[in-house]
Amino acid sequence: MKYRAKVEISLKPGLSDPEGETSAESLVDLGFKIREVGISKVYNIYLEANSEEEVYTRVDEMCKKLLANPVKDNYKIHVERIE
Amino acid sequence: MKYRAKVEISLKPGLSDPEGETSAESLVDLGFKIREVGISKVYNIYLEANSEEEVYTRVDEMCKKLLANPVKDNYKIHVERIE
Repeated sequence: MKYRAKVEISLKPGLSDPEGETSAESLVDLGFKIREVGISKVYNIYLEANSEEEVYTRVDEMCKKLLANPVKDNYKIHVERIE
Repeated sequence: MKYRAKVEISLKPGLSDPEGETSAESLVDLGFKIREVGISKVYNIYLEANSEEEVYTRVDEMCKKLLANPVKDNYKIHVERIE
């Protein structure tokens, strides 16, 4: 079965997010009224597997081994069957 | 009222995504079986407004003026009231 795993990686709370701060400043410079901007990154991973549980397990391992930095990142995994 | 607008910016279909391709290659090198990886970026924008509609309108303008590149990007806006 074919799945899409959506992994959203964001900075742990309290850590400085320079890209978000710069985006916020640029938006304010353009006249927009906002309070804060935080940036996260999404990996859409397309893979084949036998079950949703298998996808979670494999993608969680991908996060731990490559995609997320345990010191600074939090991540959320959302799995969807696409076929 | 306080809102969070989540803006997900992804490449238009068919455009080359070198970061996604590199991530896919690295995952394969690590022994993971996957078909494809696509990367998108999320801006979490915190702002005050009088209604959800107002948030959509303002954030759509932010996308058009700064956050998304109309030539290469698609974007989706999701609004949530947080207070």
